[in-house]
Amino acid sequence: MVKQVVVTGAYGFIGRHVARYLAGQGHRVIGIGHGGWDRAQSQAWGLSTWHTADVTLESLITYAGRPELIVHCAGGASVGFSIERPLQDYQRTVSTTAAVLEFARIHAREAAVVMPSSAAVYGNARALPIAESAPLQPVSPYGEHKRMAENLCRLYSEEFGVATAVVRFFSVYGPGLRKQLLWDACDRLARNEPAQFFGDGAETRDWLHIDDTVALIELAGRQAGSDCPLVNGGTGQAVSVRELLTHLFRLLGRNDDPVFSGGGRNGDPKYYLADIKAAQRWGWNPRVGWREGLQQYVDWFRQGAV
Amino acid sequence: MVKQVVVTGAYGFIGRHVARYLAGQGHRVIGIGHGGWDRAQSQAWGLSTWHTADVTLESLITYAGRPELIVHCAGGASVGFSIERPLQDYQRTVSTTAAVLEFARIHAREAAVVMPSSAAVYGNARALPIAESAPLQPVSPYGEHKRMAENLCRLYSEEFGVATAVVRFFSVYGPGLRKQLLWDACDRLARNEPAQFFGDGAETRDWLHIDDTVALIELAGRQAGSDCPLVNGGTGQAVSVRELLTHLFRLLGRNDDPVFSGGGRNGDPKYYLADIKAAQRWGWNPRVGWREGLQQYVDWFRQGAV
Repeated sequence: MVKQVVVTGAYGFIGRHVARYLAGQGHRVIGIGHGGWDRAQSQAWGLSTWHTADVTLESLITYAGRPELIVHCAGGASVGFSIERPLQDYQRTVSTTAAVLEFARIHAREAAVVMPSSAAVYGNARALPIAESAPLQPVSPYGEHKRMAENLCRLYSEEFGVATAVVRFFSVYGPGLRKQLLWDACDRLARNEPAQFFGDGAETRDWLHIDDTVALIELAGRQAGSDCPLVNGGTGQAVSVRELLTHLFRLLGRNDDPVFSGGGRNGDPKYYLADIKAAQRWGWNPRVGWREGLQQYVDWFRQGAV
Repeated sequence: MVKQVVVTGAYGFIGRHVARYLAGQGHRVIGIGHGGWDRAQSQAWGLSTWHTADVTLESLITYAGRPELIVHCAGGASVGFSIERPLQDYQRTVSTTAAVLEFARIHAREAAVVMPSSAAVYGNARALPIAESAPLQPVSPYGEHKRMAENLCRLYSEEFGVATAVVRFFSVYGPGLRKQLLWDACDRLARNEPAQFFGDGAETRDWLHIDDTVALIELAGRQAGSDCPLVNGGTGQAVSVRELLTHLFRLLGRNDDPVFSGGGRNGDPKYYLADIKAAQRWGWNPRVGWREGLQQYVDWFRQGAV
């Protein structure tokens, strides 16, 4: 059955992949957000229409039609930005969520709202792997704002019966991601720049491939309800930054090892590892292992990162 | 020493009393918010200037000068309104707080920010009296938004060193309050309208007089710091709605007793009683008992509620 879908922040890395995936399943996908696409480009990413606009109640009323699914990918996308510009990060993450939920409450009662959240809501975890019930102690405006957006989802579900679902994603990556550790590393190695990295290399991340991410978001749309179900999105496997980068060095033909500055970075917890039993109970499982995903990423980068 | 003070929401019940109190101590008080005061009226409430404007970063930059104290009284003021208009309540409570904190971070580094929050953040308490460490489970958008605003205060303190303090007020009342239970009861009795009340009368509230409220806010301004101290504002005495209204009936010369509908009201927890030890450790104590305060209120009402 063809669904009407709205993807906010469809220009972003997760948003565009969600749009293309859902369009590929035959759904009609409208995108709202910021980003310099022309019509051909937005269509190539699966959008029937792309509206360059802030995500507000007014723009949703104007452009969103009567969706049956809203994937709310708009929001702050970087811990560093949230420290530099906390009010903007608040507006991007929290106020857009308030607008999406109000739109669903009044104008799209049948819509399921899926919000990709972040493991940053946990902050420095006391125990690994991190289950959804772990204490929430974000250590950055980015994480705090994601927590506030989650609270709005739960509020609109409990108070007004809006169908919502939240997925706390760990480190999402894949071909097309032009920021964060993998991009920076590939970019600097390609330029033969000195490749010294933050931290001591012992930090762990749980790397989830974009294909698995999109599949989990689509499933969350079907699980959404007035109980606001919430699951982690990760693989359940921790990879240290040293191990990841060393592997990346080899794939790029380097025989030396990554060097670490030793210092940490503000707002970045040291260890991340997802407990993914809740998402598995939905019938989802990650399929792309990190080595396979890293090979894909390097292939994409070497082909000119298009 | 004369301080530059900004009171947001200065037209509201708490805001105007805060403004008048601080002006009476010799401080220069600027007000920003909505409300139909002419110049003489705003001056009578202690304001050197009154700016009718949304509380945004832009309006604060334009009107607030370089305050040493910001009392952020702007915000949603009713559980019922927050259920009817949740997005507006969010904007009034959360987004104004984000703006005030960003203003303090960038333009008023020396300012202390005091935010009057609400016992509504606790929701239905599991144990009485309610200490600040009690779980936060708000049962209305009003309470959830207050919790989010508190989280922003803590975020700006921890992340950026902004000096903040939060006071969770229970049932603030006093002459001049033209809403909520006391006003409704006086108003209906004066009109000889049938006086049936929500609930069963066994609900308890912790009634804090506006004079004690204002003194606690002023003290919170001196306690504010980058640890974002947070205290309850109440008397530590629970009064049932039945007891309060029966007393009110007598003060108004009625010999009958209040009648209750039996039904609860959405978003209103049944029992409230503050643990006030934390505020007492600051050296504050409530001075006006509820019977004395109720007499004052009735006197004000009988004199025409001016």
